[in-house]
Amino acid sequence: MSKKIKAGIVGATGYTGVELLRLLAAHPDVEVAAVTSRSEAGTAVADYFPSLRGVYGLAFQTPDEAGLEQCDIVFFATPNGIAMKDAPRLLEQGVRVIDLSADFRIRDIPTWEHWYGMTHAAPGLVSQAVYGLSELNREAVAQARLVANPGCYPTCVSLPLVPLLRQCRLKPGMPLIADCKSGVSGAGRKGNVGSLLCEAGDNFKAYGTAGHRHLPEIRQTIAGLQDGIAEGFVFTPHLAPMIRGMHATVYLHLSDGSDPETVLRDYYRDSPFMDILPAGSTPETRSVRGANLCRISIRQAAQSDVWVVLSVIDNLVKGAAGQAVQNMNIMFGLEETHGLDAIPLLP
Amino acid sequence: MSKKIKAGIVGATGYTGVELLRLLAAHPDVEVAAVTSRSEAGTAVADYFPSLRGVYGLAFQTPDEAGLEQCDIVFFATPNGIAMKDAPRLLEQGVRVIDLSADFRIRDIPTWEHWYGMTHAAPGLVSQAVYGLSELNREAVAQARLVANPGCYPTCVSLPLVPLLRQCRLKPGMPLIADCKSGVSGAGRKGNVGSLLCEAGDNFKAYGTAGHRHLPEIRQTIAGLQDGIAEGFVFTPHLAPMIRGMHATVYLHLSDGSDPETVLRDYYRDSPFMDILPAGSTPETRSVRGANLCRISIRQAAQSDVWVVLSVIDNLVKGAAGQAVQNMNIMFGLEETHGLDAIPLLP
Amino acid sequence: MSKKIKAGIVGATGYTGVELLRLLAAHPDVEVAAVTSRSEAGTAVADYFPSLRGVYGLAFQTPDEAGLEQCDIVFFATPNGIAMKDAPRLLEQGVRVIDLSADFRIRDIPTWEHWYGMTHAAPGLVSQAVYGLSELNREAVAQARLVANPGCYPTCVSLPLVPLLRQCRLKPGMPLIADCKSGVSGAGRKGNVGSLLCEAGDNFKAYGTAGHRHLPEIRQTIAGLQDGIAEGFVFTPHLAPMIRGMHATVYLHLSDGSDPETVLRDYYRDSPFMDILPAGSTPETRSVRGANLCRISIRQAAQSDVWVVLSVIDNLVKGAAGQAVQNMNIMFGLEETHGLDAIPLLP
Amino acid sequence: MSKKIKAGIVGATGYTGVELLRLLAAHPDVEVAAVTSRSEAGTAVADYFPSLRGVYGLAFQTPDEAGLEQCDIVFFATPNGIAMKDAPRLLEQGVRVIDLSADFRIRDIPTWEHWYGMTHAAPGLVSQAVYGLSELNREAVAQARLVANPGCYPTCVSLPLVPLLRQCRLKPGMPLIADCKSGVSGAGRKGNVGSLLCEAGDNFKAYGTAGHRHLPEIRQTIAGLQDGIAEGFVFTPHLAPMIRGMHATVYLHLSDGSDPETVLRDYYRDSPFMDILPAGSTPETRSVRGANLCRISIRQAAQSDVWVVLSVIDNLVKGAAGQAVQNMNIMFGLEETHGLDAIPLLP
Repeated sequence: MSKKIKAGIVGATGYTGVELLRLLAAHPDVEVAAVTSRSEAGTAVADYFPSLRGVYGLAFQTPDEAGLEQCDIVFFATPNGIAMKDAPRLLEQGVRVIDLSADFRIRDIPTWEHWYGMTHAAPGLVSQAVYGLSELNREAVAQARLVANPGCYPTCVSLPLVPLLRQCRLKPGMPLIADCKSGVSGAGRKGNVGSLLCEAGDNFKAYGTAGHRHLPEIRQTIAGLQDGIAEGFVFTPHLAPMIRGMHATVYLHLSDGSDPETVLRDYYRDSPFMDILPAGSTPETRSVRGANLCRISIRQAAQSDVWVVLSVIDNLVKGAAGQAVQNMNIMFGLEETHGLDAIPLLP
Repeated sequence: MSKKIKAGIVGATGYTGVELLRLLAAHPDVEVAAVTSRSEAGTAVADYFPSLRGVYGLAFQTPDEAGLEQCDIVFFATPNGIAMKDAPRLLEQGVRVIDLSADFRIRDIPTWEHWYGMTHAAPGLVSQAVYGLSELNREAVAQARLVANPGCYPTCVSLPLVPLLRQCRLKPGMPLIADCKSGVSGAGRKGNVGSLLCEAGDNFKAYGTAGHRHLPEIRQTIAGLQDGIAEGFVFTPHLAPMIRGMHATVYLHLSDGSDPETVLRDYYRDSPFMDILPAGSTPETRSVRGANLCRISIRQAAQSDVWVVLSVIDNLVKGAAGQAVQNMNIMFGLEETHGLDAIPLLP
Repeated sequence: MSKKIKAGIVGATGYTGVELLRLLAAHPDVEVAAVTSRSEAGTAVADYFPSLRGVYGLAFQTPDEAGLEQCDIVFFATPNGIAMKDAPRLLEQGVRVIDLSADFRIRDIPTWEHWYGMTHAAPGLVSQAVYGLSELNREAVAQARLVANPGCYPTCVSLPLVPLLRQCRLKPGMPLIADCKSGVSGAGRKGNVGSLLCEAGDNFKAYGTAGHRHLPEIRQTIAGLQDGIAEGFVFTPHLAPMIRGMHATVYLHLSDGSDPETVLRDYYRDSPFMDILPAGSTPETRSVRGANLCRISIRQAAQSDVWVVLSVIDNLVKGAAGQAVQNMNIMFGLEETHGLDAIPLLP
Repeated sequence: MSKKIKAGIVGATGYTGVELLRLLAAHPDVEVAAVTSRSEAGTAVADYFPSLRGVYGLAFQTPDEAGLEQCDIVFFATPNGIAMKDAPRLLEQGVRVIDLSADFRIRDIPTWEHWYGMTHAAPGLVSQAVYGLSELNREAVAQARLVANPGCYPTCVSLPLVPLLRQCRLKPGMPLIADCKSGVSGAGRKGNVGSLLCEAGDNFKAYGTAGHRHLPEIRQTIAGLQDGIAEGFVFTPHLAPMIRGMHATVYLHLSDGSDPETVLRDYYRDSPFMDILPAGSTPETRSVRGANLCRISIRQAAQSDVWVVLSVIDNLVKGAAGQAVQNMNIMFGLEETHGLDAIPLLP
């Protein structure tokens, strides 16, 4: 490419934001032109995030002064409810938008409003947004002006589940269960007591058992793949005492003689970020730390008909900023892996 | 009591051993008379475990010189395969035995030999051993000469599951799934690479998916409670990056209109270590850290017929040494809570 | 004792508060009669701290309705600036007070006002307060109506330092350096970003290098013990990625041939919570986790004249709530160890 | 470059080895041609380190069959005592060698033999080895056939110390103290009990207080820079409960009016991996996680004449594998930063 893609980041003081900054700095064809934060306007990015000293000369600006409309693409790394207000203006001016919040993920407006407790500010845009689960939606992403970047749990669960539901037969009436575990960075860089090292450290618990917002998002993705599959879907998120990492353990009852490992392997043959492990392996979250990868294994439970899928991602990379950059690559006709080839940090 | 119970501990250099030492030191009616370790014979207990400085004057002895036969009770905190060889002699001399290893947990000898990969050295004793899941087996424990102290996962899973299987109707043919998470101390105080801070820290993974030894133990406990329940049981253990703590997430499909929370509450009304949380609560492992407690909540999954049980214990206390002391209390006619009233350490 | 001591706790929703609740529940001669919190008034203590379920029937009350004046003793586990306003009224009514905040620790009012950035509300009371470093001040504590409970760093540093400065000769002009490391619970149970698991976890840093409030407190304690000793004192606190625990590494230059280990051992011969380790040992923070202990070792640096003191405490116990209970025991003529004999939780 | 550098790694199953593999895979001008391990010969690298799946097609080989003599450079990531035996043969065949173990770090053979407890197998080579503290020794490294890659503590301490000792005057007779803290990965990927998550986690302790092997290495580096400076040097290493990261807190007594921050800034003006923080900053280890950086701040202690230097590195990168790659770049005339521009992973 002769000219770099000019990118803007709205709300870059959180974990998704700093991860976007890290990834885009390593991207050969992107120039981060504007970074906004109302609360930190005027602060140099490199002063705010010491890991970025020497990497960025930029300072945070208010959204108004940042000149986002001159960007080729703007990432929203904002809390829910911001992008739906600010993205329309940018889209009208021809800027492409990737929203890492939940504003455009749910196509059914009443469902979104129920789970997010807000009136949607741009319901007309929702149907135009492309759900950016890259591997499952490449063609649409390539044409998109507005991408709804998926949630971390939906990414970790849907990537293994969709091919299996498309190509294997589940026993009817059986529940489909996703028991998921997330590192604490999924809760964001906010000073809430529950995310303190002294509360979340050396501790394990379920949360959101009354209903987590990623439940309707996963249901939407799997709806219609098999009869009644979405309705019977059970989702339990847990908080694990670690910084990054997400692990989904999915239980499903196959009724036919299909070989689900081969199904996954074939389905993702041309997907460079998808890694189907050999039989008997168990993926660990650290094997994807810092990288835009999803590693999956599947096996039959010991002495049982139930199949157990194990799926791991880094919630901040494939579960957020990395998938956003992957979507950007697809939108701009670049190699999907461009700038995303960092190797996981282990140990 | 006018006279203290003389207790011996065989193989006290591991985590179960040091936890027994901690708990028994705080027990008003017990005197630890002998502590054995072949590798550390001659070393003062207080030098080996700095947390016990000033608490014990004892040194480790070899099993032969320790005079275990003069104890009232001997705890085996040994690797599997030791107690089955050494306990018979003590039992013959009238010493009561609590085995914290797996040697006497499985009543079916071929099943035990299959899962543990050894020939059982005392098959005749197995049927005399009482399975020491205290709350479910109090009367038998009270009469026992030999108690097989349960595994940590079986304790965490069976305590909520047995009452529910006894009193609620499960939908036939539905799988019963226990997705379990353990702290690293469950792997013992051995120098294996997988338990290093740099391997297990900031990481999450499933393990033992090909079949974990606690699977047949749980199956044995629930077998016969409902038709086919043991065969359909699925168990996935995971390793969480924390020191102590165990969390079971159990999924079951109730077919009748029973109220499982009330079932649990009624069942454990007189069990001081069982805590059924109010509806909507989620137990966390740190809320039982260092204490002989099991806290449980149950709720229906969001928009589903599946019920989700959450159960937490400290794997080293209620999952090992604490339950052993509880069993000792029952065997000697003491209050079940005697010496076991320490409050969880939080944060 | 025929009658229990009635205790009140003001501001019990923080880590110092919950630790007081844990320790006092285990104290045979104390009844916690009132627990206050403005923000949580009406909430049951056992609902707020799940580790205390089944232990307390109390609910938080506002300070006004709690009837604190009917207590025998009131602990202030409040932020700085509260006790100086509310303690005077209680003292007038004959209630004894132990303040775990910093309000009464610094005798020089301008120094206090400089470091704490407030006007002192009860300067006249400061000279009546007894600095509750129990081992160094037993007689005064026994007579005290108002005890200023020391800070965690001052406890960890002063306990080894005071005997050494009293009985060994330091080389004049040499700096006295305390390089200290604290677990994150020292920062309290507040939702500040720096204490998040994702910020403080897997990380190590110095902080407060421009001057930490515990510096004048330590200087006050060592002032006058040797010429110029306070002025030359250097203190660097660091934040370690753990929940509890504090480690001081103190460097001092002895000029005479004294044997500092013997000095410490003799000095603390009758202090049950002080543990001087044998030569060559290194204390670790987990060896005091949850217990009111201070373990110390001292040795000459390799090929050097500098002596290195290593001192560990649990910052929430000997560094806060435990020492407060110890002081209460002394004030009420109880055994110093009464109710404080819990064994450290290891691992 | 028209042709890639062929690199071999001896003993690549440890943390230094896997970090070399990660860094060299990202290096545009290097091809890893051979990876050896006696114990894992035949195992695919990608099977052994799941983080490297899809990155390497290589399998471990025995040293004999690996064809190391056909490499342009061989890295020894072996335990001490191996390189001194195996490097000579390679050097004779024209292969350049970077030894990440300690075999060639100490120029005085009796000193090395005293601290490492072995007879040196190649004493004649030691004087030819260049000590690879890259920033201080660039010219010599550029000419070297054999580089002794520095230890992690010596790197973290010497980088700030050498310029200060060269350009500022220390008060004579004052001790120079380095209080250092390391993550657990510094202990290597060996199954020793002390490195278990349950031993090293949630814990802090000093170690090696009787004398750590990095003491003579630092002394050698600073010897002669000022009178008696090496003899008065005090070094205390501590173990912090984290995976990666090293923090040195160095105390020194400046006697002149020099401005040490400016000294450091000027000295490292052209060193891209050295980052001198602005006055008042405190570096944190996570700000260099995964990157070949050393960040340093210096300030006068509060109300004192002592200056406090804070220095952080990632012990596996700038403290080991990263500095080795940096040295390789220098040896082969490449840009020093070539292939080493990864941004720290935060959080």
